[in-house]
Amino acid sequence: MTTDKERWLSPLAAAGSFPDLPLVSGVELAAIEAGVRYQGRKDVMLARLAPGSTIAGVYTQSATRAWPVEDCVAKTGLPPEGGAAILVNSGNANAFTGHHGLKAVRAISAAVSRTLGIPETRVFIASTGVIGEPLPHERITEKIGELAERLSPCGLKEAAEAIMTTDTYPKGAGTTVSVAGQEIRIAGIAKGAGMIAPDMATMLVFIFTDARVAQPLLQEMLCDLTGPTFNSITVDGDTSTSDTLILAATGQSAAPEITSNTDPAAQAFRKALHGVMLDLAHQVVRDGEGATKFVEIRVRGAANTADARKVAMAIANSPLVKTAFAGEDPNWGRIVMAVGKSGARADRDRLSIRFGDILVAENGWVAPGYNEATAAAYMKNPELKVTVDLGLGGGESTVWTCDFTQRYVAINADYRS
Amino acid sequence: MTTDKERWLSPLAAAGSFPDLPLVSGVELAAIEAGVRYQGRKDVMLARLAPGSTIAGVYTQSATRAWPVEDCVAKTGLPPEGGAAILVNSGNANAFTGHHGLKAVRAISAAVSRTLGIPETRVFIASTGVIGEPLPHERITEKIGELAERLSPCGLKEAAEAIMTTDTYPKGAGTTVSVAGQEIRIAGIAKGAGMIAPDMATMLVFIFTDARVAQPLLQEMLCDLTGPTFNSITVDGDTSTSDTLILAATGQSAAPEITSNTDPAAQAFRKALHGVMLDLAHQVVRDGEGATKFVEIRVRGAANTADARKVAMAIANSPLVKTAFAGEDPNWGRIVMAVGKSGARADRDRLSIRFGDILVAENGWVAPGYNEATAAAYMKNPELKVTVDLGLGGGESTVWTCDFTQRYVAINADYRS
Repeated sequence: MTTDKERWLSPLAAAGSFPDLPLVSGVELAAIEAGVRYQGRKDVMLARLAPGSTIAGVYTQSATRAWPVEDCVAKTGLPPEGGAAILVNSGNANAFTGHHGLKAVRAISAAVSRTLGIPETRVFIASTGVIGEPLPHERITEKIGELAERLSPCGLKEAAEAIMTTDTYPKGAGTTVSVAGQEIRIAGIAKGAGMIAPDMATMLVFIFTDARVAQPLLQEMLCDLTGPTFNSITVDGDTSTSDTLILAATGQSAAPEITSNTDPAAQAFRKALHGVMLDLAHQVVRDGEGATKFVEIRVRGAANTADARKVAMAIANSPLVKTAFAGEDPNWGRIVMAVGKSGARADRDRLSIRFGDILVAENGWVAPGYNEATAAAYMKNPELKVTVDLGLGGGESTVWTCDFTQRYVAINADYRS
Repeated sequence: MTTDKERWLSPLAAAGSFPDLPLVSGVELAAIEAGVRYQGRKDVMLARLAPGSTIAGVYTQSATRAWPVEDCVAKTGLPPEGGAAILVNSGNANAFTGHHGLKAVRAISAAVSRTLGIPETRVFIASTGVIGEPLPHERITEKIGELAERLSPCGLKEAAEAIMTTDTYPKGAGTTVSVAGQEIRIAGIAKGAGMIAPDMATMLVFIFTDARVAQPLLQEMLCDLTGPTFNSITVDGDTSTSDTLILAATGQSAAPEITSNTDPAAQAFRKALHGVMLDLAHQVVRDGEGATKFVEIRVRGAANTADARKVAMAIANSPLVKTAFAGEDPNWGRIVMAVGKSGARADRDRLSIRFGDILVAENGWVAPGYNEATAAAYMKNPELKVTVDLGLGGGESTVWTCDFTQRYVAINADYRS
């Protein structure tokens, strides 16, 4: 039980509290205590979206994904008929639950549809928590009436709290962008990819905007921006069966509709959306289980972008590199090892490595003038930058990760439910 | 320094001592204290092989491999002109050491060549230990005369000890096989893939036999057998810059030459060699840093062999799965997760999972009659078997790994040199 766990706030948590976020027109939220698994806390959230809202989604690529994900995939991209809703529970992932899982998704969908008067095809469900146990969906469906009564434009923070599992703090980010003299608002919430007491990491992200954007264009933007944000973070390289990222655009802003990727309004909106997504992605890493370091890995000079990403991910996922970060050890030999094993084209003698601004290695050997004490002092920072230049071409990639501590092992070895 | 480290014998170590191994005709070994990095222990070994010995080798695929590896690659497969020698030091990997690294390899090669009266092209060198520091090769070359004087047919155990870094015990395996009424002897040593205080994992394996086998056939056998043995183990998925596996065949046995993969003698020899390689590979896993569980992962029913291997390796390398083993938690949900992320074809609803003989999950859900208490009791064994049947085809793969403990993180975060 998470209640057994020592209370621990990530040392990388943004000091204090949930940010003040813009109120996105056409979005109302509520959260409630349904007792799905956890006791004494809210564990179900509901979002109602104005009629005409367009919904874009990006989902886990796992071959064993959960029923709620399958259901969302089927519904994403259908025409925006009537309003829409998102219902999320924590405590149970409804994954690997056989035919019971599908039945639960349908029961919740039907109940939300009836209560809010919207088509079932417009109800999006996500579940996070323990795997392989039947979701007690009646506990959720019997609360939907009460949830609907509580819906409020100000419910985002309690929604962020309701979707937490072993996250140490609720995660939110937002911004406002001006288009043709009118404001477009964006606000989102996320839960982290900690490896989590109940079971496996499940990253859930819900972003709302009052921009007016047709579904295909909204989907295209979301896919484009997922690459450099949520797909560029890693806590441990394990992929959840339930990862879900939904972007809902209500069209309630007075700003004109965004109709093409190339017009200036689209570019301003994309930039703002990118900022919100990156902020949430970074928060997920900062709250990675047991994390004490937030690390940016920048790879330059690769033969191509794919190679740059391979190298960056090989470094970011190497247990050897991550334990060195935890030990505040400027162990650049392990970076060389990770470059070597990545499968990308690399030439040992053209490689250079920097920790922050400190040139550590170049020309196939330790850099002249490299001072271990200076590098060791740098490693004591809670935020680290590692830059690797392969010296081969123009391929670049940046990813973010955290360190790998004994606390991570303790959380995942000693706790399940 | 390893001397700072708490002394810890892996709980998975074979009870007690180095095995009694057959004496392979045509092989003499010696070890000596050269003070390359460690103090108060032997750290250099030399093997002399009879004239006509054939040498096969398999080396790390890393793009940043060390100079000794490059040199071995260039020499493997040259005609067996005169005798041959293998020199190995621990404490310094001579990796990422620029032009100095090549110079050191040449100096050692030349000294061994002069002392033993064999061509430089027949001197094979391997180094393991810290990366990025120049190898003090004079400390080695000045000891070669003394090493040569000590050469003995009985030197295998002290050679196994000299190549250790943070291994907790020396590793050896061997067997004898009868061909046409004559004995062929095989004996080998290995050092482990622990993540090692000095720096990164470097697996080194040296196997000797008095069989007579031409180099191309010996190389073919070694490559074939590396797949199901050393390439089927993983401690943490990190690939060393120095991994080296050398098989030397002296031809001193009275058994007839093995000339074709298909003759019965070749098959008997292959089988015996496979046994020795698998034994050494398993010893490397058992001595994985911090390991308390030895785990066999068997994947069946995959669409093809490549898919089976992907799934097996995804399970074996998942931090989430490995920490559950450490916690003695029958957390089959994490196995489902690893199958899902592997990239192999999988169908959630055809998957079955067994811990030992216990059927845990099938048909997309927990198995009827599954009892968590029984499974939890099974997980307390030091040796575990996990069987995953994908239910799709005939692809099979078996790999071996260990658990992932807080001790692993402590070793790799807190120590370097």
